[in-house]
Amino acid sequence: MEYKDFVDLQAVQRLQQLAQKSYNLAGSGTLPPERISGYSTSACGFDLLYSTQRIDDQVLDELQNLADEAGLVKQFQAMKSGAVMNRIIGHDSENRQVLHTACRDIFTDNPLAPEATSQAREQMARLQTFLADLDSSVVTNDKGEPFTTMVQVGIGGSDLGPRALYVALQRYHLPGRSARFIANVDPDDAAAVLADLDLSRTLINVVSKSGTTLETLTNEQLVRQALAAAGLNPARHMIAVTGAGSPMDDPEKYLASFHMYDYIGGRYSATSMVGGVTLGFVLGYDTFKEVLRGAHEMDVAADTGSIRENLPLLMAMLGIWNHNFLGCATVAVLPYSQALLRFPAHLQQCDMESNGKQVTRYGVPVRWQTGPVVWGEPGTNGQHAFYQLLHQGTEIVPVEFIGFRNSQYEADIKIKGTTSQQKLMANMLAQSLAMAQGRDHENPNKKFSGNRPSSLLIGERLTPYAMGALLGLYENRIAFQGFCWNINSFDQEGVQLGKILADRILAELVPEKDGGRKKLAPDAPEISLLRAAGCNE
Amino acid sequence: MEYKDFVDLQAVQRLQQLAQKSYNLAGSGTLPPERISGYSTSACGFDLLYSTQRIDDQVLDELQNLADEAGLVKQFQAMKSGAVMNRIIGHDSENRQVLHTACRDIFTDNPLAPEATSQAREQMARLQTFLADLDSSVVTNDKGEPFTTMVQVGIGGSDLGPRALYVALQRYHLPGRSARFIANVDPDDAAAVLADLDLSRTLINVVSKSGTTLETLTNEQLVRQALAAAGLNPARHMIAVTGAGSPMDDPEKYLASFHMYDYIGGRYSATSMVGGVTLGFVLGYDTFKEVLRGAHEMDVAADTGSIRENLPLLMAMLGIWNHNFLGCATVAVLPYSQALLRFPAHLQQCDMESNGKQVTRYGVPVRWQTGPVVWGEPGTNGQHAFYQLLHQGTEIVPVEFIGFRNSQYEADIKIKGTTSQQKLMANMLAQSLAMAQGRDHENPNKKFSGNRPSSLLIGERLTPYAMGALLGLYENRIAFQGFCWNINSFDQEGVQLGKILADRILAELVPEKDGGRKKLAPDAPEISLLRAAGCNE
Repeated sequence: MEYKDFVDLQAVQRLQQLAQKSYNLAGSGTLPPERISGYSTSACGFDLLYSTQRIDDQVLDELQNLADEAGLVKQFQAMKSGAVMNRIIGHDSENRQVLHTACRDIFTDNPLAPEATSQAREQMARLQTFLADLDSSVVTNDKGEPFTTMVQVGIGGSDLGPRALYVALQRYHLPGRSARFIANVDPDDAAAVLADLDLSRTLINVVSKSGTTLETLTNEQLVRQALAAAGLNPARHMIAVTGAGSPMDDPEKYLASFHMYDYIGGRYSATSMVGGVTLGFVLGYDTFKEVLRGAHEMDVAADTGSIRENLPLLMAMLGIWNHNFLGCATVAVLPYSQALLRFPAHLQQCDMESNGKQVTRYGVPVRWQTGPVVWGEPGTNGQHAFYQLLHQGTEIVPVEFIGFRNSQYEADIKIKGTTSQQKLMANMLAQSLAMAQGRDHENPNKKFSGNRPSSLLIGERLTPYAMGALLGLYENRIAFQGFCWNINSFDQEGVQLGKILADRILAELVPEKDGGRKKLAPDAPEISLLRAAGCNE
Repeated sequence: MEYKDFVDLQAVQRLQQLAQKSYNLAGSGTLPPERISGYSTSACGFDLLYSTQRIDDQVLDELQNLADEAGLVKQFQAMKSGAVMNRIIGHDSENRQVLHTACRDIFTDNPLAPEATSQAREQMARLQTFLADLDSSVVTNDKGEPFTTMVQVGIGGSDLGPRALYVALQRYHLPGRSARFIANVDPDDAAAVLADLDLSRTLINVVSKSGTTLETLTNEQLVRQALAAAGLNPARHMIAVTGAGSPMDDPEKYLASFHMYDYIGGRYSATSMVGGVTLGFVLGYDTFKEVLRGAHEMDVAADTGSIRENLPLLMAMLGIWNHNFLGCATVAVLPYSQALLRFPAHLQQCDMESNGKQVTRYGVPVRWQTGPVVWGEPGTNGQHAFYQLLHQGTEIVPVEFIGFRNSQYEADIKIKGTTSQQKLMANMLAQSLAMAQGRDHENPNKKFSGNRPSSLLIGERLTPYAMGALLGLYENRIAFQGFCWNINSFDQEGVQLGKILADRILAELVPEKDGGRKKLAPDAPEISLLRAAGCNE
């Protein structure tokens, strides 16, 4: 397939013209009932209301043309079927398939990528056995007591996604089971987590695809030391998730091992064993499978050609409209659900690491904006904080609201005739409306210019299935946008230089007695920075 | 004092010219030792290294002129001395003093704002007595057992700052003492916190200046219900922090009450009783006072006229350089300290709610950009996530790195000749360097364009004193920027419209039997949105 540059797509020129006179949401009468009910689409239990975007039918038609011209659904299907989408054509690159979708394509006899799905099934079966052994006390600590806590040691993709899902689904935990996470090379991260734990009842789940991640190996050593100091045998407490053949792929050192594959990037790995082991431990195997089912059904929903009916694709195109045509540098993801507290941090990773790119899939510098800055915190908290800028600031921030009709715990209270959950939802709708319509006022400081775009994504309840669907929705939105910008959303060369420079600086810090050799010139910026920072000894 | 509009300041014109040919950090030789050591300044134990900003002496001189011309230090001193800085001249506005600095100006016999400081001292004395009563078991639960947990119920300023400080300083907690926080009107927030607690050993600290905050009152009721359900007497477990005379200022209903004053805005209230009660409970009175001492000393350091010697002012001016002259829409605050996990969320509030404004202090629409979007997560975690975009994305994101030479727990490990703390710091320096210098490469996907600005803020250790100083630094940076943009950084009119619309929507949801009356026209957008969202019943 021939990929076209974003600015060479014909729809782009037309959309640029349409952006000059885009729909103005400000004022009254801009949101008639038929607009609100008409600009709505659904998938996997989620409804997207997008009447509060600065669009009209003409813009939607042209966004459809853009999606068609760039062959977005075709590319998505190629990806799911095992095409080598992670590459830079004509240059040295990772040259890998992109098959995170395969590890949840387990509900059919005819998966799109049979080999990858068969590997996923194998790992799922291993996980099921391991969890059953824990449940039946075949696997216990030295004293024969069951394990209560799993500490996941990993960073980036091996941390943010699993952690976000854990926080989101904590309500569904098995009795007596919980999880903690250690990611940062900051020794205080591990120290703070370990200070709280009964290590004798704890399993340590070390997660690193390469088996060489500096932070993770360092924290693994810290934890091993702590286990030994507590008189515990590390081999009875450590499990591993790693790539086959990695330095960590050593069953001798671990109570159990699970595999991850290089066709699943870290930031897309929450539905593989990277998320599966800890989530399975805390929630149970069947509940984790519900997460997979949600994600899988959203993968299927993303096959639809019409953007008006394809939720992930529509969100992708609305994002491109706001970013490339209306010129908004950032996008805020604001969940009206405390359980989604860490979901924006995961999306920040997934989106910005995927689409913060500077060259096309042919290795040519891009001539258009690629991914925006993604950020967010839960509402209603944010309403008492940064929303001031959303309403009256000079930076226009498009918002993706996420909310649910029902709470997870159903421990609610009625005050002034409405429940907290109703207040939560009413606030979310109100914010979208306030951003759109604005308000005139004789006091200039109480004036709201309005015309600030948002959409509302609404589900029934944040269940494991819904969480999986939501994750799949965003993963697919991100992939669609990357396809449209003609970039490789699946590598991360931009993180390499920092590693090289950090190693170079660290080499200067190793004492000579430990084999350290100073290599840098005394006037190298690394040396000057170390000295100015007072970190040179 | 006459305030000038930002674009009418003479230095602004000259800075616009200088921005056309700003210092290029890319390539080798751009960071000679004398630049790195020369572009460094210190205050209260923090060093700021800013050679990796796109500035030279000429730009610094002109930023100095800008600060002088706008009278920034003079305005700051007026603020500290009780001038009515929270107002819109010629329009109805809050018309209040801005005296968060007064509640830490308690280390002298001659405070700048004697009345406010005397009120602060009174509250501090009450806190000291209350904490002593807890320590000596004069105040206990019904069974005579000491309280172990404090749950702070508050939102926005009554949540984010205290929570960020609590997370940052947890290492210094008194034995057996901890805190939790409930903020969101989402009923799952309270449910998840309450599910974990031994309520019989818990104090509930309800914080609301107005005593009318919807979320907080709702959550207070939820908690009172839970206490009653557990057979506990709420009056023995509830304390309050509120404004004198507010509906919550009712000693009958609370075991103890503390006051906050309307000259301290919510987002600047962490060093008042809003933060003091919970932090004092967990850390002890003297340790909380160390936080105040740090903040106070930074308030004093901000009096210096020279931007090269005034840390908060310098950071303010560098931020304005990046935002208004180099055109960067956002700023990332990236602490290399896991303990600062929630500090960016607090800053996001403090900065964006303060400076996300559209009119000047005379009520005239601004003709320049005001506050940027502020966001961030701890490094090294972020390096495995969104840093890809920082290095190779098309959005340029200036970074404020924050790090410490020593860890809090000192539970470290040496691997390959260096400690985790050294690895942490080396990574931070390396990131700054990588962003600045970039890298040429024959493979276009491995190329880094560089010239991306950052600064490094480095302290000795994240102690209570250091945390106070860091908080004061940012509070003062934000105030300086607001003064320079000629906006009122101390009100938040932009949060009002959402509240009004939410109330209007909620009124539609109250059943008729509960006194509800439908008021909106059936084709009102509120009604259509409710229906489309499936939230209309």
